[in-house]
Amino acid sequence: MNVDILGLIAGGLTSIASMPQLIKVIKTRNVEDLSWLMLVILITGLSLWVWYGILQNELPIILSNAFAVLVNVSLLSCYLLFRDKNKDEKS
Amino acid sequence: MNVDILGLIAGGLTSIASMPQLIKVIKTRNVEDLSWLMLVILITGLSLWVWYGILQNELPIILSNAFAVLVNVSLLSCYLLFRDKNKDEKS
Repeated sequence: MNVDILGLIAGGLTSIASMPQLIKVIKTRNVEDLSWLMLVILITGLSLWVWYGILQNELPIILSNAFAVLVNVSLLSCYLLFRDKNKDEKS
Repeated sequence: MNVDILGLIAGGLTSIASMPQLIKVIKTRNVEDLSWLMLVILITGLSLWVWYGILQNELPIILSNAFAVLVNVSLLSCYLLFRDKNKDEKS
């Protein structure tokens, strides 16, 4: 298999992986079981992968990780937004 | 910055990112808000990244994604294990 195609498929999958989680969070508005630390570490790491991809001039790495940064920043925003709501419901 | 070191830091962060989530799930035994579809897509994508890394002969990509596969397979196992427990508690 062409290595660029393999990279694009791999990158496509890892970058859309957080989408079902984002959709679930938006639907249920429950974030209690999620780890915010996971999201912070992930966003930092994915951003560094974008930088790595730019230096290595590897398009699959740049595109997939840039998209994943967007999705996970949205997820973190939802976390911060719904966390307070979840707290309010309990109190 | 040396591109290999950058890759190792990026890979280190994205591969340990799921660890806080795994620890949280093991501690709380609650998986209700997690998306199993996210885990399945992620494990598939990460496995393809390992293959991509082998073909490109890039050690940071191989090591970081192989470790991430392990963590996320553990997370999926916990999900399957605790999902039934969560259901039992509700019924």
